Amino acid sequence: MTTQVIVLNGGSSSGKSGIVRCLKYLLPKPWIDLGVDDLVDRLPPSMVTFGQQGEVTLGKGFGDLQRAWMAGIATMARAGAPVIMDDVFLGGAASQERARMCLEGLDVLWVGVRCAPDIAAGREIARGDRVIGMAASQAETVHQGVVYDVEVDTSHTESLDCARTIAAYVV
Amino acid sequence: MTTQVIVLNGGSSSGKSGIVRCLKYLLPKPWIDLGVDDLVDRLPPSMVTFGQQGEVTLGKGFGDLQRAWMAGIATMARAGAPVIMDDVFLGGAASQERARMCLEGLDVLWVGVRCAPDIAAGREIARGDRVIGMAASQAETVHQGVVYDVEVDTSHTESLDCARTIAAYVV
Amino acid sequence: MTTQVIVLNGGSSSGKSGIVRCLKYLLPKPWIDLGVDDLVDRLPPSMVTFGQQGEVTLGKGFGDLQRAWMAGIATMARAGAPVIMDDVFLGGAASQERARMCLEGLDVLWVGVRCAPDIAAGREIARGDRVIGMAASQAETVHQGVVYDVEVDTSHTESLDCARTIAAYVV
Amino acid sequence: MTTQVIVLNGGSSSGKSGIVRCLKYLLPKPWIDLGVDDLVDRLPPSMVTFGQQGEVTLGKGFGDLQRAWMAGIATMARAGAPVIMDDVFLGGAASQERARMCLEGLDVLWVGVRCAPDIAAGREIARGDRVIGMAASQAETVHQGVVYDVEVDTSHTESLDCARTIAAYVV
Repeated sequence: MTTQVIVLNGGSSSGKSGIVRCLKYLLPKPWIDLGVDDLVDRLPPSMVTFGQQGEVTLGKGFGDLQRAWMAGIATMARAGAPVIMDDVFLGGAASQERARMCLEGLDVLWVGVRCAPDIAAGREIARGDRVIGMAASQAETVHQGVVYDVEVDTSHTESLDCARTIAAYVV
Repeated sequence: MTTQVIVLNGGSSSGKSGIVRCLKYLLPKPWIDLGVDDLVDRLPPSMVTFGQQGEVTLGKGFGDLQRAWMAGIATMARAGAPVIMDDVFLGGAASQERARMCLEGLDVLWVGVRCAPDIAAGREIARGDRVIGMAASQAETVHQGVVYDVEVDTSHTESLDCARTIAAYVV
Repeated sequence: MTTQVIVLNGGSSSGKSGIVRCLKYLLPKPWIDLGVDDLVDRLPPSMVTFGQQGEVTLGKGFGDLQRAWMAGIATMARAGAPVIMDDVFLGGAASQERARMCLEGLDVLWVGVRCAPDIAAGREIARGDRVIGMAASQAETVHQGVVYDVEVDTSHTESLDCARTIAAYVV
Repeated sequence: MTTQVIVLNGGSSSGKSGIVRCLKYLLPKPWIDLGVDDLVDRLPPSMVTFGQQGEVTLGKGFGDLQRAWMAGIATMARAGAPVIMDDVFLGGAASQERARMCLEGLDVLWVGVRCAPDIAAGREIARGDRVIGMAASQAETVHQGVVYDVEVDTSHTESLDCARTIAAYVV
């Protein structure tokens, strides 16, 4: 049994990208990293809109696109290239269920990346490159009903230490 | 017959990324874009090294990783999500052959993105974020023996106009 | 007589930043480069707002801030550090007059960076990181009534070649 | 008495930029922010070199350039535009003395931004865009002999909270 896919789920500004970089630094083998941000990047407004209060609205057709995207990630992993996938489960448990179906048959490590809403909101200001409001609005909802193999909380733990915790679960 | 994958091949600083953005702006459906830069990003030095003169050296194991990556892209396209893949065929015709095998059975539009070596080298300086030398060293070698459905040359044609030419071939 | 300040004036997406990088590459001495984008970055909305059509509105108090900024640039140049300042003369000749007063007594090279409106608009799409509309709305207005020592046009000339033309005027 | 310049001194990856963004968010007036990174950016290698172990070497002539730069910042502040200047005092107390002379006559708030060396080194990995080694090598040396009005430590305190502490000293 070998970990083939690491799924990191957490709200905006919860610290997923920093953890991904640290994981790639810590893990001995090369991992491909693909994030939902890459998928969402420059989609037409009919598919994704970012509201003034940081709310993300996904249009008709986004679900199909995302399913195809995850099916591709599953193929990469089956073909021998392990993948770190970072995601934002806007639909909580339902999003995980959809991901689980796409990744069926693979050894997946499910990781929850938590961050206290007020701390994530502060980091959103410090970053200066995100729509203000996303962090707070997603911090808790994305974890509702989601089941993890391991959870980390970046509120008071450094990215590198979170990555070490996760890496210990990678087999 | 519907175009499922657009492969853009061209050297560093030939203008592929600008063309991708324009294609996504012009094409009516949403396309996923994935580039070899995403794959190469932060791989361990045992896999990819960038020399002082801009030469790129791929280590043992990179080929397998890339094949898995392309197999995943093929799955995305088969599952209904069209993909724009930008690549740098360091091995010329042999690289295309490898890509062709991974994308077998799919409707692929092969696009050559050319740029005169001295112009690409100048743009590399103007960008200021690339290893100097990559543009000149790759400008012509990446096209050796490669067969295209359509070729564009960014030397004297704007990205948006190149994208319009390509978009006319997308069915 | 030695050039102490190079002022580059041109609309958004006219290619100023690429020319600045090439100038720093070509010129033998080290130059400090400061752009109005650095000044405008993260100012409160009471000072600068970017409209949906790409129009830039400057609030009360922005003029004072900008005058202080330019006075500082003048001091740097007088103290022996030559400065490349890139700017967008939203007020055309009146903006130049204001800059001229701030830079009084210094050897200034006034450079116009032109780009055909439709070409600048296309490059704005290709860049993917600017409010759409700024390029077209500024392309011509920023040059109205402005007097230059040298003008370059990036429509059909590469950044590096434009920089070479400008560098020949630097004494 | 009104604060005219805020000088933030801290090593690479100590968190200065995030604090600057939060300060601009918190402070009621608009502040200009200028950092030594802007100055160092794209200087010729004869002026600045970055070693493999993260060490920064400044060439002959850099001191003069920096003095002119700070003289310009002093002028901006005197002309009514308050400035946040973030710096890395590679020379410790001697660097502060030099800055003090350039800013003479101005109301300066001296701020130390500390971060434990191992934590800064971890954040350097998580950022993924810095030469590895800079954080650890600068973390303590830049504070040697430097005298502050207020010190913050980002090791266990968020950027926004550090900024709040600093903002309370701004008059």
